[in-house]
Amino acid sequence: MKVIRTVAAMQEWALHRRCEGRRVGLVPTMGFLHQGHLSLVETLKAHADLVVVSIFVNPIQFGPNEDFDRYPRDEARDLALLQEAGVDIVFMPSVAEMYPAGFQTHVEVEKLPQHLCGLRRPGHFRGVATVVLKLFHACVPQVAAFGAKDYQQVQVIRAMVRDLNLPILIIESDIVREEDGLALSSRNTFLTPEERQKATCLVRALQEGKAMVERGETSAVAIRHVMADILEDSGARVDYIAIIDPDDLEELELIRERAHAAIAAYMGRTRLIDNMRLKG
Amino acid sequence: MKVIRTVAAMQEWALHRRCEGRRVGLVPTMGFLHQGHLSLVETLKAHADLVVVSIFVNPIQFGPNEDFDRYPRDEARDLALLQEAGVDIVFMPSVAEMYPAGFQTHVEVEKLPQHLCGLRRPGHFRGVATVVLKLFHACVPQVAAFGAKDYQQVQVIRAMVRDLNLPILIIESDIVREEDGLALSSRNTFLTPEERQKATCLVRALQEGKAMVERGETSAVAIRHVMADILEDSGARVDYIAIIDPDDLEELELIRERAHAAIAAYMGRTRLIDNMRLKG
Repeated sequence: MKVIRTVAAMQEWALHRRCEGRRVGLVPTMGFLHQGHLSLVETLKAHADLVVVSIFVNPIQFGPNEDFDRYPRDEARDLALLQEAGVDIVFMPSVAEMYPAGFQTHVEVEKLPQHLCGLRRPGHFRGVATVVLKLFHACVPQVAAFGAKDYQQVQVIRAMVRDLNLPILIIESDIVREEDGLALSSRNTFLTPEERQKATCLVRALQEGKAMVERGETSAVAIRHVMADILEDSGARVDYIAIIDPDDLEELELIRERAHAAIAAYMGRTRLIDNMRLKG
Repeated sequence: MKVIRTVAAMQEWALHRRCEGRRVGLVPTMGFLHQGHLSLVETLKAHADLVVVSIFVNPIQFGPNEDFDRYPRDEARDLALLQEAGVDIVFMPSVAEMYPAGFQTHVEVEKLPQHLCGLRRPGHFRGVATVVLKLFHACVPQVAAFGAKDYQQVQVIRAMVRDLNLPILIIESDIVREEDGLALSSRNTFLTPEERQKATCLVRALQEGKAMVERGETSAVAIRHVMADILEDSGARVDYIAIIDPDDLEELELIRERAHAAIAAYMGRTRLIDNMRLKG
């Protein structure tokens, strides 16, 4: 496994491998890796000959009052995990390498971010789309894998790839959960033991929403009320609970063919997200 | 010479040629070709083994009251000129191929468009940057050539290429002029014979500005006044006259090391632009 820290060296490596007929896959991450990231690596191996994992805590996707500075980092542990996982290249650029003085270009996907996290985190998906496009240009993958926990992010990236004619296959990998159902997230490390225990309320609320739909409930407001009760009973502060069309992320009032549920909630200071297909 | 009309076929061609070790060059155009475009093809041949010319009148770089509908088009003539020029591929996508239903992603270079044409044509450079990025992704060139007549455009594209880590060399080709000095432009076809004759006022104003700097004038306002007189004496309606830093496009008050002049002016209904290095 090789660590590459500059865009130029990364491009040179990737373009040579591609012209040798090798299929290059990319897993973009912000590091502090967990089993969710490693499952993306495993998923990608079925689609690529060579796996690149990028580690870059992207400042421009954090708002001014968000947790960029305290976002967890552990380079040595990440490298050991990726070595063990059989990754070929770790791309770890510095902030100065990615955003040198004079940087002034952003990519904006316009409709999909006007929902869910995009409404609560202005500029977040602009920062995500911009860094992912830069990582795509640097690593030149034919295929890239993203985790389904960041449901809206995957939809935004799919739209960007389609709209900008990037010849990259986007793979979505299922949410990896702890035994008690909590979705894996680097931010789980911020939870106190008590918050960690209560944090299962997100997945429990989603499961109850899904069960209601299976029992024939069609009113989104009725489902959201039950989900809110479950979250609040565990002391979570709800940021949003949304029952949405899985493709355009528009809120549904009536559940007909297809529906997806997404939650953002604070456990103490830590904002957690989770989502689940309810129907279709 | 082959005409390709879909992004997928264009990408397949370009990626194969690159992996054969051929160097692919691109000249993006909006068609209605003139000697300026053909000089870009010639310039590019020194840097590329294979030349792709794209022809696409890009709707998203025209404002609602601009001339998208009446922008001149002549596909048969363009193809004959490119055949004669020894071009390998003409990429001619339809609007529906470039902007299918649901399209919602744009690229925005932020500082450079806050000057000159960018101030008068809101969204213009957003449309330019977006289509050029899409053409880069479709044609996968190692090198691309742009005409210096669109001075601000070249600077915007250079910034985008640098900021988004595109491994593409940007070549700028000198302005090609008629014998009397008028910069070649597809829009010159809109000029009446009388307007055409008077339209040399743009280059005359620039030449006089340059002569003043050579004689030691350092005041941008003094130069702009003389240039305005030349334009108005020919019946041109000035949109802007700017003496700028050649790199960041900021207006200068005092001319010291390096200075560039840019003009936009209407001859009748037709908006013309031209520019010239004054110093440095």
